[in-house]
Amino acid sequence: MMNQEPLYEGKAKRLFKMENEDFLLVEYKDQATAFNAAKKESIKGKGKYNNEISSIIFTMLKDIGVDNHFIMQVSETEQIVTKTSIIPIEVVVRNVYAGSLAARLGKEEGTVIPKPIVEFYYKDDALGDPLINEDHIEILQLATKKELEEIREKALFVNNFLKDYFASCGIRLIDFKLEFGKNNENNIILADEISPDTCRLWDMDTNERLDKDVFRKDTGSLIGAYDKVLTRLKGEKTWLK
Amino acid sequence: MMNQEPLYEGKAKRLFKMENEDFLLVEYKDQATAFNAAKKESIKGKGKYNNEISSIIFTMLKDIGVDNHFIMQVSETEQIVTKTSIIPIEVVVRNVYAGSLAARLGKEEGTVIPKPIVEFYYKDDALGDPLINEDHIEILQLATKKELEEIREKALFVNNFLKDYFASCGIRLIDFKLEFGKNNENNIILADEISPDTCRLWDMDTNERLDKDVFRKDTGSLIGAYDKVLTRLKGEKTWLK
Repeated sequence: MMNQEPLYEGKAKRLFKMENEDFLLVEYKDQATAFNAAKKESIKGKGKYNNEISSIIFTMLKDIGVDNHFIMQVSETEQIVTKTSIIPIEVVVRNVYAGSLAARLGKEEGTVIPKPIVEFYYKDDALGDPLINEDHIEILQLATKKELEEIREKALFVNNFLKDYFASCGIRLIDFKLEFGKNNENNIILADEISPDTCRLWDMDTNERLDKDVFRKDTGSLIGAYDKVLTRLKGEKTWLK
Repeated sequence: MMNQEPLYEGKAKRLFKMENEDFLLVEYKDQATAFNAAKKESIKGKGKYNNEISSIIFTMLKDIGVDNHFIMQVSETEQIVTKTSIIPIEVVVRNVYAGSLAARLGKEEGTVIPKPIVEFYYKDDALGDPLINEDHIEILQLATKKELEEIREKALFVNNFLKDYFASCGIRLIDFKLEFGKNNENNIILADEISPDTCRLWDMDTNERLDKDVFRKDTGSLIGAYDKVLTRLKGEKTWLK
């Protein structure tokens, strides 16, 4: 596959055409970026971890009925997905104040939010992925009101499941970002990835950061953190005291 | 009144207690501020213009049934208002892309928005009045869902009226900010001011700025611009060709 030109190259992934045009091959890159790519570094092994972690999570989500684009993992850094037309909205679900929300509302990082918050960001690198509201989404014609309601419900359902699942692995799900796409039947399905690149994950006991904040804030080994997440998700419960 | 300590001093106004505690005296100051008070200047006459313009607009709004805090103008720079408990949400209605929305969505200033956009900002100077969504408002307990719906409807109603009214004065209402408060019967009523400090107003024919952008961008005389607005609102149609 690698000899082919990618159909699309993002900050963390490359997408390749497949013979069957309903599918795409996704290659996870080793590149880490933060602050809209102002900070950038190649970290050997990162692609493998995100590919594996996202494959595990999307498989579980499919098992519980959350339609998504994941078909199968085909190598350490590659997976096959259903081709979708991505809706240019980054859907963020938050359980605990952290990152930009803590700053926006003047709350201390780590404070539990009484009820999950859903935020929509306009997926546009040139604009810095700004926060938008439902009126902006309607005017930009990114999604209809009905589609947005469906997206919101799906995001909260995913949150409910993942929060409990991560908790069973000794991890607090602080917040995460989802993307949705439309398949060729025009149904909205979960797409993109769910990994320590797109979630804030804190150790339940120590609050150790097990996500990309390690890279954003230069506080330790990204691979070490991602390895802990993968190990726990795989059920190798060596982390249990 | 001026010998008394103000109950509250804001960037553009001072509030004083009155003998009847259901009311407040509002004094409009000559101070102009922009960019969350990073830019600040005293401009002689500004208080008078905003007091007069806001008095005219709130009177008209009361006449068409929009409950609001305005009671009467009592001097060039003072008005009496009903005391309310201000809801800390800045409600912005936009008809045309300008200012922060043009930047947020990457649109050219002056482009008509197909349908008015309503935005909510958290009224908190220390945080820079950030854009917030309905989930944030619920979590911060700034307003209930029902109250927010009421606020939104009132804001759109005010927009419909003011857009037409300003148009009849040869002025395009680009966008504006409203604040609401609860009176002592716990009803939500329109409060604060509506003036060239809180609206973007462009001459219908020339796009000349007739609002605080003249000060923000140092493009001319603020008093000259505000005087044009007041003259037109007073129906002295000397501006008509």
